[in-house]
Amino acid sequence: MAKKNAIYAQSGGVTAVINATASGLIEAARANKQSIGKVLAGRNGILGVLNEELIDTSKETASTIRRLKDTPGGVFGSCRHKLKPSLDDPELKRIFEVFEAHNIGYFFYNGGGDSQDTANKISKLSKQVGLPIQCIGIPKTVDNDLRGTDTCPGFGSVAKYVAISTKEAALDVESMSESSTKVFILEVMGRHAGWIAAAGGLAGDGRDEPPHVILFPEVAFDSQRFLAKVSSTVSRLGYCVVVASEGVRDKNDALLAETGSTDAFGHAQLGGVGSILAEMVKRELNFKYHFAVADYLQRSARHIASGVDVEQAYAVGKRALEAAVEGADDIMIGIKRLRDEPYRWSLSEVPLSKVANIERKVPKSYITRDGFGITAQARRYLQPLIEGEAYPSYRRGMPIYTRIKNQLVPKKLKPYDPS
Amino acid sequence: MAKKNAIYAQSGGVTAVINATASGLIEAARANKQSIGKVLAGRNGILGVLNEELIDTSKETASTIRRLKDTPGGVFGSCRHKLKPSLDDPELKRIFEVFEAHNIGYFFYNGGGDSQDTANKISKLSKQVGLPIQCIGIPKTVDNDLRGTDTCPGFGSVAKYVAISTKEAALDVESMSESSTKVFILEVMGRHAGWIAAAGGLAGDGRDEPPHVILFPEVAFDSQRFLAKVSSTVSRLGYCVVVASEGVRDKNDALLAETGSTDAFGHAQLGGVGSILAEMVKRELNFKYHFAVADYLQRSARHIASGVDVEQAYAVGKRALEAAVEGADDIMIGIKRLRDEPYRWSLSEVPLSKVANIERKVPKSYITRDGFGITAQARRYLQPLIEGEAYPSYRRGMPIYTRIKNQLVPKKLKPYDPS
Repeated sequence: MAKKNAIYAQSGGVTAVINATASGLIEAARANKQSIGKVLAGRNGILGVLNEELIDTSKETASTIRRLKDTPGGVFGSCRHKLKPSLDDPELKRIFEVFEAHNIGYFFYNGGGDSQDTANKISKLSKQVGLPIQCIGIPKTVDNDLRGTDTCPGFGSVAKYVAISTKEAALDVESMSESSTKVFILEVMGRHAGWIAAAGGLAGDGRDEPPHVILFPEVAFDSQRFLAKVSSTVSRLGYCVVVASEGVRDKNDALLAETGSTDAFGHAQLGGVGSILAEMVKRELNFKYHFAVADYLQRSARHIASGVDVEQAYAVGKRALEAAVEGADDIMIGIKRLRDEPYRWSLSEVPLSKVANIERKVPKSYITRDGFGITAQARRYLQPLIEGEAYPSYRRGMPIYTRIKNQLVPKKLKPYDPS
Repeated sequence: MAKKNAIYAQSGGVTAVINATASGLIEAARANKQSIGKVLAGRNGILGVLNEELIDTSKETASTIRRLKDTPGGVFGSCRHKLKPSLDDPELKRIFEVFEAHNIGYFFYNGGGDSQDTANKISKLSKQVGLPIQCIGIPKTVDNDLRGTDTCPGFGSVAKYVAISTKEAALDVESMSESSTKVFILEVMGRHAGWIAAAGGLAGDGRDEPPHVILFPEVAFDSQRFLAKVSSTVSRLGYCVVVASEGVRDKNDALLAETGSTDAFGHAQLGGVGSILAEMVKRELNFKYHFAVADYLQRSARHIASGVDVEQAYAVGKRALEAAVEGADDIMIGIKRLRDEPYRWSLSEVPLSKVANIERKVPKSYITRDGFGITAQARRYLQPLIEGEAYPSYRRGMPIYTRIKNQLVPKKLKPYDPS
């Protein structure tokens, strides 16, 4: 039997370490040339498969592939595009045509819950159409909301960025609070799950250390309780640091910061919690405030990526390839925690059906009773994920990030016409 | 003659490296014990002098003082409080009383243009009242707007943070632009001078590398030209990255983001340029956008401080003390550029009257003719300032930042009554 080729596609928001996963996967493929053909990367994720824009990763040097481990963003491109995987769906038909035309036997989908769901369905449907594809999901999401894995590659680095940024900004605010800013708010990502906001809690420990208030999507926002907490903190310490998830919502489950527009998955596009809270603090308490919106900075900050996160991101990519060569199918590579301290972990294979489309939220036991902080249990979980500094190399003061040639394999099919 | 003590006070917004200046100054004082007594630090800057809250730095260990070099924020506290230095001013009278009570012979004021002005006047007036004080200004401002020095300690680290963050976020946006965010805006500090925004230009070089648009306070904002530039960039590249100074203003010199409130110096409190531009892009061009507001994160990011900046911050502190011991008075320690590449610099002494209250803006020759980018000349100036990575030490994934005892010397005067 001729060796089959593989398609690797990144999906959804990129991270500081998703290219490390690509690096692990491609290096493993190169080490398994006897079993596997080329690794083709979808240009802009699954859109590249639909458009038959497949990047030939064999054109990249070993050094480039190695250095992907140090490069944030998604070098092959990613997309927000949800498939409706059913045999009636023209997009799925097209995907199978592309798979067949390029002798694809393996599909690696590197993304969040939606992507794991898609991989799950493609695996099953491919057998129905007589074109069996081994589908392996690879976890990736800064939101850390996937089940079946101790953590999601990408999260540890955002967590480290947010914890450090909170600590640094808090030192700044504290220095000036006597005569200037009293309340500082850092708005972080997290639509439905407050993992990133929780990580801000690692900035300090003990009652009076910042952040003094964490706002989770899991805890209904109550403006009176929030303002009372801010006010008492300023009275006691002279300043107050708040880390707020973009997904903060009220008791009716309405987002504090609903902008009205939605992304391709129908999720609301968020933003603005920081300014809404700041205005509230000014209006009701008359404290001078500042707020920062970390936005993409938090998820692309490869310069301060977590060493553990980089290592895990690389490992899940490498293992995904090796598992496929061993015959695995319809599974996601998961990370299994063996021990909290010192942190020990191994890799596992999780049936895709068990992880698809289920969001893992921050459990109650991780949030302090007043709803504004993290518990010791949360610290035990979070702290190991930010361990280690995996600095990139620098030239003239700037990190060296790798670009790829992005050379496409020749097309074999007619252009895709979605109409 | 009995040895005189010194007062050191930080003023205005703190930075990632202002404590490095304190470290240099205090270490130099300890090396010059034969000539100088204690270094007392004003708690919360000049407010600490008014309130006779003077931190006894001799209570801190050598290791603590050394590690201040790695710690952001202002460990002694800072303030925004402008003196009106005239002999009729009760605040100035009080300051001289405190100076006399604590046998002060040296006053080191570590701040921006306002502080240099104050130091200048205190120096002159102290002679009039027969209590001669040697006053040495030490430059500090992330805005980089002081004359008489090649750069201001604090700026190089913000510049590095903004350049790296722009580069990282740009890789993120580019990865997703086919199906998601097309325009990303990073709002940075800079009330009147666009040095920080200019530093964003170091993220890339060449016509198509991000950032594609830089908005300076020095260039009158024209929404039609801005939108045309964003639109053409998205057409050509698929995405557009904008770095916008908070101080962007229109042709009538009105701030795009006037919030109406002012700080203690009567400066308008800014914020919101990022969201204003984003809304404009959405409304007029209908592109999906994201924006980040770096706020305090940029000026406290010791984790990615510029090596050159840390070195210079330490050096100006050390030199200030040494100059005072040598008899200098009414001067600021400046940084003098000897060569662009490799960057060479030395320290100088600049009469305070020549630096006080004059803002240095980004010169025309540093801004490209279209007003949206930086020239080669600007790069030659800016690039050396971000060289080198001066990483702090880490424990359990977090940087080790130093706290001090903050032990005050006993008060000798009655409480200050401003009424």
